[in-house]
Amino acid sequence: MNDTHSLPRNETGIKTAVSILKQRFGERLQTGEAIREQHAHTTTWIANQPPDAVVFAETTEEVADVVKIAAEHRVPIIAFGTGTSLEGHVNAPAGGISVDVSRMDKVLAVHPEDLDAVVQPGVTRMALNEYLRDTGLFFPIDPGADASLGGMAATRASGTNAVRYGTMKDNVLSLEAVLPSGEILRTGRRAKKSSAGYDLTRLLVGSEGTLGIITELTLKLYGIPEAMSAARCTFSDVASACNAVIMTIQMGVPVARIELLDADCVAAVNGYSGLDLPVAPLLLLEFHGTNAGVAEQAATFGEIAEETGGTGFEWTANAEARTRLWQARHDAYWALRRVRPDATAVATDVCVPISHIAEAVTRASAKAAEMDLYSPILGHVGDGNFHCTLLINADDADERSRCEAFTAWLSELAIELEGTITGEHGIGQGKMTSLTKELPGALDVMRLIKHAVDPLNIMNPGKIFRPDE
Amino acid sequence: MNDTHSLPRNETGIKTAVSILKQRFGERLQTGEAIREQHAHTTTWIANQPPDAVVFAETTEEVADVVKIAAEHRVPIIAFGTGTSLEGHVNAPAGGISVDVSRMDKVLAVHPEDLDAVVQPGVTRMALNEYLRDTGLFFPIDPGADASLGGMAATRASGTNAVRYGTMKDNVLSLEAVLPSGEILRTGRRAKKSSAGYDLTRLLVGSEGTLGIITELTLKLYGIPEAMSAARCTFSDVASACNAVIMTIQMGVPVARIELLDADCVAAVNGYSGLDLPVAPLLLLEFHGTNAGVAEQAATFGEIAEETGGTGFEWTANAEARTRLWQARHDAYWALRRVRPDATAVATDVCVPISHIAEAVTRASAKAAEMDLYSPILGHVGDGNFHCTLLINADDADERSRCEAFTAWLSELAIELEGTITGEHGIGQGKMTSLTKELPGALDVMRLIKHAVDPLNIMNPGKIFRPDE
Repeated sequence: MNDTHSLPRNETGIKTAVSILKQRFGERLQTGEAIREQHAHTTTWIANQPPDAVVFAETTEEVADVVKIAAEHRVPIIAFGTGTSLEGHVNAPAGGISVDVSRMDKVLAVHPEDLDAVVQPGVTRMALNEYLRDTGLFFPIDPGADASLGGMAATRASGTNAVRYGTMKDNVLSLEAVLPSGEILRTGRRAKKSSAGYDLTRLLVGSEGTLGIITELTLKLYGIPEAMSAARCTFSDVASACNAVIMTIQMGVPVARIELLDADCVAAVNGYSGLDLPVAPLLLLEFHGTNAGVAEQAATFGEIAEETGGTGFEWTANAEARTRLWQARHDAYWALRRVRPDATAVATDVCVPISHIAEAVTRASAKAAEMDLYSPILGHVGDGNFHCTLLINADDADERSRCEAFTAWLSELAIELEGTITGEHGIGQGKMTSLTKELPGALDVMRLIKHAVDPLNIMNPGKIFRPDE
Repeated sequence: MNDTHSLPRNETGIKTAVSILKQRFGERLQTGEAIREQHAHTTTWIANQPPDAVVFAETTEEVADVVKIAAEHRVPIIAFGTGTSLEGHVNAPAGGISVDVSRMDKVLAVHPEDLDAVVQPGVTRMALNEYLRDTGLFFPIDPGADASLGGMAATRASGTNAVRYGTMKDNVLSLEAVLPSGEILRTGRRAKKSSAGYDLTRLLVGSEGTLGIITELTLKLYGIPEAMSAARCTFSDVASACNAVIMTIQMGVPVARIELLDADCVAAVNGYSGLDLPVAPLLLLEFHGTNAGVAEQAATFGEIAEETGGTGFEWTANAEARTRLWQARHDAYWALRRVRPDATAVATDVCVPISHIAEAVTRASAKAAEMDLYSPILGHVGDGNFHCTLLINADDADERSRCEAFTAWLSELAIELEGTITGEHGIGQGKMTSLTKELPGALDVMRLIKHAVDPLNIMNPGKIFRPDE
């Protein structure tokens, strides 16, 4: 994509900084090709642009040291957690140093009374939940991949249960970060709310490593619900399914997850998982609460589904049966991959007001078909957020160019429908051009802030802001 | 207080700007003393520092015009909604122009399917709920006063039901604001979530008019719950009451309000409202949900209350009985005022992790007694947030100085207990010195952002940032 071109490199600075860092970090600085490539973008069609070196930092002070050296020599710094981002966030278009924080993987404190935990940025969401297993608490945000919590904060991640628990913006109480100057910033304290000055926590959440490197997070936790129930229902068309979603949300049913699979997805999982679901739009739901509460929620949804033309409504509070009911969703990604095993998957996401989601999904499907693209749709429809998972032959220049045209068109559709070009994946390199269309005036203010906080532009350059503007 | 001293005035600029604005706005620019004083701080002991003129703006473009003229002549601009802020936010320590947006009071759109509304900044929270009356929807944030929604966003307000519905930070989807340059910024779109660049919405929420003037808000709405129940329970001490709160939150009971009145408050309302509650800490709760759900929630709390030593537990789902049960809370402010009818009320707020709230409240009460101050405590304890309502003779220099010392001490206590100097009132002029203690490094970054966005320092100067630093 044209946003991922290389940027001018500061060869002298990079050489000097790498050599100083080698002295300082020894074997914890790596320059081998494989490790450098692995620390650049690897998850989609965006080109792999490796850093010049990878430093495995183990403490906040070490991150600060790296940043100070990089600042002195004007060398780019790119934070790296698990590399699961989808828009090229970890690429090094101008070269520079990748700061791998995966060894900063300690849970520093859990405060059960306050429902919070203090973690290092390399802790992954699954590792945190494993750590919490005996406490009766959990951290709900689930973007799919077992991403690092630092990376999830940096990209303002969310996922299937954001409809109930919110996104990273709602679940980070405060942050510690190393600023471009090498100074260490603490954005807030452990109180559940605060009106003490500008909300720097929320400024860093979603800043994609362009304002600082997150070195510690204080996160909200939740009690594991007494009960969970799941439900499933088929609809004749996307519009009916979306009507059911809208009514569910409007009635205040505190649904924990509400996912849409389009007919392409259902066909794929039928084949992959040996299911025989009707090949039509499918809603999958999960409810959290008391035993009586989750039964009541499922029953309420059942009534809504009937009213909106749903068929084959099923629900259960049994754990194994829940997993079976949700199998279509759990298997969806791999099922889709198997439809075109050699294809590259390009997962793109947009988010629109829920009243526009039926139109958005329907038009996106029609457009993909018109452009001869295979683009099944999975949606976190309770938030109006959905993904087109394009499966393309990335070596076929024509298909690739149609796919590029489609994703750009999809962003414009989202803007037309009062929505956003990304609900949860972020801008990275992939959506810089679209961002100028979504929020032109706001982008100017973002740039003012970027210049003020990072005047040397060493923090993840070439992301969010088009370098040529 | 020493934070409210006057700042240097740009006499020539002010004179010129006022004269240009008089030409432009005619009778909608006012310079009479009464109206100017009414547009400065009037709610607590902080000195009244009137602006030089008040402009009643009616459109975003008019606000932009005022700001452009002010910028050209380097004259301070202070946004004004209802003037109900508590920390001197609307004062004009360097003089300048008050931009009164109370005539920008239209609800521009309600989208029931998306559960959002678009409003002008002068719409008050009660006016919005009155407008929504027939829709089955409501806007939950309730800071007590019938504040303007623009002002509530600017101070990151919250109130009694933040424990369930969050604060303004959680309920503003996007904003339009006039920047210090006079340009009009739109921070986002109507989608429920977004990862499109820096979160400028959250940056403006809580920026207290120092980065721009909010001219339009897109707000989240909620369906009015099918049922509400209320409960009340007395505890022998604050610690037991707080334990009940902690267990309630930990068990995931989705309590809508959970308020603590200390023994002083209870004594005051007994006298004022003819109640005969035991003079001991009292918890008042409200639950929102289905009929079965609110009954279950109240019953669960009843069990918790019993386990933690509560007495006199009562609950009801009947509307009139709910009002009676909550009368102690509704009447608390006026009841306290009647204890010392001629006193000035100084409402100060801090917020600590919930595990520390019993210690914070107990130590605050003891300290007030030790300093011979009357300081009853009301708390939004589900969030760890509480208010000391000091009733003082503001003409008594000694009592005033003890009160100043107490509020400074209380801020330090909150910081000691991992909390914040303000959960919901903001910094304004009243807490600038304490803010330097809570977040010294963060304050430097806030200042960088302030300078980048408002290089002439015309937007509400002398707030958040100590002018002498």
